Amino acid sequence: MPYFDAASSVPLHPVARQALEASLDEGWADPARLHREGRRARLLLDAAREAAADAVGCRPDELVFTSSGTRAVHAAMSGALAGRSRVGRHLVVSSVEHSCVLHSAAAHEASGGEVQEVPVDRAGRVDPAEFAALLRADTALACLQSANHEVGTRQPVPEVASACRAAGVPLLVDAAQSLLWGPVPGDWSLLAGSAHKWGGPSGVGLLVVRKGVRFAPQGPSDERESGRAAGFENIPAVVAAAASLRAVRAEAAQEAARLRELTDRIRRRVAELVPDVEVVGDPERRLPHLLTFSCLHVDGETLLHELDRAGFSVSSGSSCTSSTLTPSHVLKAMGVLSEGNIRVSLPLGTADDDVDRFLQVVPGAVAEVRAKLGVPAAGDPADASAGEDASAELVVDALGKRCPIPVIELAKVIGRVPVGGTVTVLSDDAAARLDIPAWCEMREQAYEGEQPVDGGVAYRVRRLT
Amino acid sequence: MPYFDAASSVPLHPVARQALEASLDEGWADPARLHREGRRARLLLDAAREAAADAVGCRPDELVFTSSGTRAVHAAMSGALAGRSRVGRHLVVSSVEHSCVLHSAAAHEASGGEVQEVPVDRAGRVDPAEFAALLRADTALACLQSANHEVGTRQPVPEVASACRAAGVPLLVDAAQSLLWGPVPGDWSLLAGSAHKWGGPSGVGLLVVRKGVRFAPQGPSDERESGRAAGFENIPAVVAAAASLRAVRAEAAQEAARLRELTDRIRRRVAELVPDVEVVGDPERRLPHLLTFSCLHVDGETLLHELDRAGFSVSSGSSCTSSTLTPSHVLKAMGVLSEGNIRVSLPLGTADDDVDRFLQVVPGAVAEVRAKLGVPAAGDPADASAGEDASAELVVDALGKRCPIPVIELAKVIGRVPVGGTVTVLSDDAAARLDIPAWCEMREQAYEGEQPVDGGVAYRVRRLT
Repeated sequence: MPYFDAASSVPLHPVARQALEASLDEGWADPARLHREGRRARLLLDAAREAAADAVGCRPDELVFTSSGTRAVHAAMSGALAGRSRVGRHLVVSSVEHSCVLHSAAAHEASGGEVQEVPVDRAGRVDPAEFAALLRADTALACLQSANHEVGTRQPVPEVASACRAAGVPLLVDAAQSLLWGPVPGDWSLLAGSAHKWGGPSGVGLLVVRKGVRFAPQGPSDERESGRAAGFENIPAVVAAAASLRAVRAEAAQEAARLRELTDRIRRRVAELVPDVEVVGDPERRLPHLLTFSCLHVDGETLLHELDRAGFSVSSGSSCTSSTLTPSHVLKAMGVLSEGNIRVSLPLGTADDDVDRFLQVVPGAVAEVRAKLGVPAAGDPADASAGEDASAELVVDALGKRCPIPVIELAKVIGRVPVGGTVTVLSDDAAARLDIPAWCEMREQAYEGEQPVDGGVAYRVRRLT
Repeated sequence: MPYFDAASSVPLHPVARQALEASLDEGWADPARLHREGRRARLLLDAAREAAADAVGCRPDELVFTSSGTRAVHAAMSGALAGRSRVGRHLVVSSVEHSCVLHSAAAHEASGGEVQEVPVDRAGRVDPAEFAALLRADTALACLQSANHEVGTRQPVPEVASACRAAGVPLLVDAAQSLLWGPVPGDWSLLAGSAHKWGGPSGVGLLVVRKGVRFAPQGPSDERESGRAAGFENIPAVVAAAASLRAVRAEAAQEAARLRELTDRIRRRVAELVPDVEVVGDPERRLPHLLTFSCLHVDGETLLHELDRAGFSVSSGSSCTSSTLTPSHVLKAMGVLSEGNIRVSLPLGTADDDVDRFLQVVPGAVAEVRAKLGVPAAGDPADASAGEDASAELVVDALGKRCPIPVIELAKVIGRVPVGGTVTVLSDDAAARLDIPAWCEMREQAYEGEQPVDGGVAYRVRRLT
């Protein structure tokens, strides 16, 4: 049963499991105690810190273990912002950061700070010059991921780090998605990582704060982990995390080219095999194991279930699969289609055959979902049936209907207005704002903008073809 | 090699180990995902939550897993204080809470809140009436541990919970030390626990918030664990924590009486075998497995090392063993001797023989430390040698000398002043404030108070015998 959701979490690596089991007997005691059990625990913790620091490329005293990558990011941002509060309260983040970065930014804003987001191009990448242009004398911190978690695009960290260094602003790199592939290049100041993304256990994050970075840990004081990560140390897990990062790096170096070829194959073949699909993310500057595509007129959750039934575990950034009912902020920032979104992230060791089977399954799964939703195919009669007697202006009320229904309703009626006529879709679904313009671009129709209406938004589309 | 520091942390219970290893294969995925690996992880998490809630005595939807007991306390206090900020910012805590409670209280005070500490008696116990008297119309939260972590004294939680309920104030119980022995009685509102204290793995805390308690989680928002504990769930550890709590409870019920007898034996025999010792903590209302004593004129760290060399792992609340150089706030609040402090906390299954061997070792170890420090024995010639020609006022300069030296200096010279004369000890060691009055009480001399002097404090003692 192929698991293609490595970017969420991967099974425990055998080296991690071995290290975990081996250290359960030695690593349970309090490393702050003076007795032999405490000293043994301390030795394990120190050795794990050295191994992890070596793999990340920092000094051991610059690295602490947190209870998760999210906690590492929270601590990094609150500590760096507080440490530089005299400089100012301006924070710069890319618009496609992980939600834990954006939620920290929102908390900073709620407490009176100022946040500016650096936009990305259609491939999900920031422009270093645009990033640098937002840095100011009162900028306390800048944040840029090493690679995007939803579309795999690698960010220009070395260039942005140089710009930050020149401006005297510390740069925090969320390296959760890339640490498995190697150290983060460039002259960054802070870094966060997450062990369960590389085959380490759950419950371990890394926080690196370079010497010389002003840092004031927030929250109640606690002596553990240099005061930067409160709570009793989880030493067996930390040992497993450090041991597995080294082991996984060796494998990753061997696997990179092979997985790259597999993800290239999926990107190419999906575009050929599935009608009305948009393969998103930078085709070149991306993680080797991750790719993402969106399918017009498809309900992401139903498609996930179809693929799950066929034995493939993937994830989706479509709003229809999320409890928050908002489409992925990453796809939104990129301005690409969000409906029918599928992220494929291959674990190390993924079999060639499984990828080929996946490619056999996807077109049918997408077609089935579309058929269930009664989707008109591109160029099908409904599209072409505009009579001269048709009204030049049509309004479709899709209020209360969830993604992808508003777009499907639009597709169903566009053929009923003459070329040059308009369809106005009323929708209260957050995904419509993203998907109606994306549909227009894919269908070569003109998107004419939105207006608030009672209970939702009116999106206006002019028929061109 | 007997390990007598169960109150710090205990080895992984076999049931925990088994559950951990069994769930490593099933519990690594993201429980928020819709694919089969995610659903399996979700099932494990839900089952663990039900088991833990059953053991704690709450509803599953009232309990979330945190990454440590410390984190559970931090989240409980910040969430409850924020949830009731309209009521007021007054916080009541006992003076002998765990440092994670007191550090949260300090953070609350630093942000403009008001904190009041409820004193304890010489046994370390709060008086419910005194606690109730501090509750006010603007009290947002009250905190009381179920039992003290340093001296084992059980607190009157049911009585205090009733008083809080009557005053409309939520009570948070830090149950880290007692959860192994059973659910916390009484009508409390919030509860925190820590798995590695009962034989569960490191990396798991419990936070219970009763329905109806106003609670506003602080920090950046995060969807996991009802928004109350940010970061990826550590499911294998959570499963192990829940499974072991149930298993350990059954054993604890059987072991309570036996360990109680062993700790009674140590309390009684240490008082008989070791000169100038103070056994502290409530003799009756206490945890079955924990006892504490302090030895006059003893350096706690050296004594720990002596006992460690003899094969016994214990801990100490003496300042001389701590990196902070301040004596235990618990012993200070109780007003008892802090020097030469030893906490013995027996794990389930402790052998009778090991306790007897410990009792054979302790008197010699204490004597050896005292001999090294050149301590005059009680009633020894130095004590009795006051000549009529002696000065009636003596000043001892112990500035720059660490605990227990200032008290030893005092003991060395007290015999040189006539009965009715005074010795003034100059000291800049924080433990002196606690230990000089305690010494006077044990030696039946009169403590006459302190005065600030250049570089420290002058403690004045009048010779009575």
